[in-house]
Amino acid sequence: MSAQKNVLVIGAGLIGTSIALDLVATGRNVFLRDIDATAQEVAVTRSGALAFGGQEVDVVIVATPPSIVANVIRLVVSEFPNAVVTDVASVKGSIASALADLPDEAKARIVGGHPMAGREVSGASGAQAHLFMDRPWVLTRLAQTTDEAISAVRTIATDLGAVPIERSVDEHDRAVALVSHTPQVIASLLSGLLVDAAPSDVELAGQGLRDTIRIASSDANLWTDILLGNAQAVGTNLSLLASELQATAEALSAGDHDAVHQVLAQGSRGRARLPGKHGASAQETTVVVVRLEDKPGELARLFTAAAQAEVNLEDVRIDHALGRMTGLVELTVATASRDELVGALEATGFTVFA
Amino acid sequence: MSAQKNVLVIGAGLIGTSIALDLVATGRNVFLRDIDATAQEVAVTRSGALAFGGQEVDVVIVATPPSIVANVIRLVVSEFPNAVVTDVASVKGSIASALADLPDEAKARIVGGHPMAGREVSGASGAQAHLFMDRPWVLTRLAQTTDEAISAVRTIATDLGAVPIERSVDEHDRAVALVSHTPQVIASLLSGLLVDAAPSDVELAGQGLRDTIRIASSDANLWTDILLGNAQAVGTNLSLLASELQATAEALSAGDHDAVHQVLAQGSRGRARLPGKHGASAQETTVVVVRLEDKPGELARLFTAAAQAEVNLEDVRIDHALGRMTGLVELTVATASRDELVGALEATGFTVFA
Repeated sequence: MSAQKNVLVIGAGLIGTSIALDLVATGRNVFLRDIDATAQEVAVTRSGALAFGGQEVDVVIVATPPSIVANVIRLVVSEFPNAVVTDVASVKGSIASALADLPDEAKARIVGGHPMAGREVSGASGAQAHLFMDRPWVLTRLAQTTDEAISAVRTIATDLGAVPIERSVDEHDRAVALVSHTPQVIASLLSGLLVDAAPSDVELAGQGLRDTIRIASSDANLWTDILLGNAQAVGTNLSLLASELQATAEALSAGDHDAVHQVLAQGSRGRARLPGKHGASAQETTVVVVRLEDKPGELARLFTAAAQAEVNLEDVRIDHALGRMTGLVELTVATASRDELVGALEATGFTVFA
Repeated sequence: MSAQKNVLVIGAGLIGTSIALDLVATGRNVFLRDIDATAQEVAVTRSGALAFGGQEVDVVIVATPPSIVANVIRLVVSEFPNAVVTDVASVKGSIASALADLPDEAKARIVGGHPMAGREVSGASGAQAHLFMDRPWVLTRLAQTTDEAISAVRTIATDLGAVPIERSVDEHDRAVALVSHTPQVIASLLSGLLVDAAPSDVELAGQGLRDTIRIASSDANLWTDILLGNAQAVGTNLSLLASELQATAEALSAGDHDAVHQVLAQGSRGRARLPGKHGASAQETTVVVVRLEDKPGELARLFTAAAQAEVNLEDVRIDHALGRMTGLVELTVATASRDELVGALEATGFTVFA
């Protein structure tokens, strides 16, 4: 801990302020700096960190917009010649390239970092304690990065409840292009079709569309930076999808049953590869559907009944239709606990469809 | 009611069996028929309807796979010369075209129907009471369809708790291409990229990807029929998206900041057009984030506290990361109730981030 006792966070956005908030809670001396004095003040108030005033620090966390991360790191390694310097950007390759001409001594202290958490809001006011709890926090190295530098950032990630995962720069960028950046573009383009749609068409949208385009509300400025910073890996995926989309359009036009079926079956196989929807343990689970009466306190009564049965819920999903919640709640439980849960809920008077 | 006292459901799948289940509960005489005797038996047992044995019926609901709906309707209008005949297929134009040569007398009794509900499971064993509660149930006419026929199906939809909405055949097909069929293809193609991805890449997937491709697990056989039945409207959207995807790939490659930003901003505007995420009333809502300790009964304690404060929750969302639930729950409430909820939760010992 002592090697990361004094930490400076540069950038008073959602991620920087959330990190500061949690780091203060670990008992570290945490300082914040932002070129925007107002943003800095909001973040200081929200996090309990101190405004930076020239103190010596062990670790600097650069949490600025991704497009300027490399330039900030370049300044920081000179300003703090003894500090480990890390960042939180969603892209790593373009930053590493931009730092290629730094001296080895500086590179030895640089650790790429990517805490994979975020919200659909931005700014210090959206900051949140425990934002990184149970989230991956990817660590990457330059060729010269020392184990000690990695270890310092790893300790911070762990203390914030995150799960540090080391990857090469290329592995990181390829992975996030697949699981995060490409889905963002896809969701945004699909959602964009709604802009000029008839209100009577949009009215028929259900939970499927709602889920598919949820991330389309993400911050456009931040995401422009992210996508441009990982342009090659993302562009490759987009070109591939563009040709697959065009091929699917042609298959529909030709009435090619097998080709259309193949698209859907392949998608289903891909979906099944996501880490156990309902638990890293990948235990077998079952969905139990419960109908709630339209009166206050029904959710409380439901979860009280589940708790009294000592059944552990793996997932909870509440259905939406026509823009409002319906009375149906889907509870996911280990298959072994299914009968116990159903029995307990029925005994409490709930209608259960399992 | 008397005009729809005796109802025959043809097709013992998820939708047909769910309709039969609910119709039995309304006190109607409900009959089921399926060419697959085993499927029919499962559906009869599950729904409480009777196996069809030649009784006279007032309404026939064709709930077969979409590709054979038109042929079944053609047979049914002869077999039941006095019955109103409707269906539940997700496409309407291709069925209407296939019935164009029927006599006017038959067309007068045909009502296109599309209850917009479903689950990611299929078959009679997935049938569920109240599946249509609060869901749109679109009704379409042939040129000859009578108001009496529309009224009969409308009454059934209403009695099942659905919201009947009349649209023209073309309006329906265009709307579902936009809000349902195109998103299905997009989600399937995106999800398909995961099939050959490295496990270490897939491991980094978070809630964003999980939501974006949720519907990729849908039934590939059913959806092949649906997409082929609405090939033109879907194909138009897919071609448009293919060219937009390619243009986005080129904008990334060229480092065109404005073009990339435009894609994201447009997506955000589209997302904002969805019917009030948290309530048809479209009242202003706020998200309150609550941290749960990792011990049994915390969800029950949370909802009990909310219920005792008499605050109505508009939405509930539980975060997932690394394949398991985290301790963060997002509660959406009317902004006017926010302070009351936060106060009640904090008084009960919860850590609240609002």
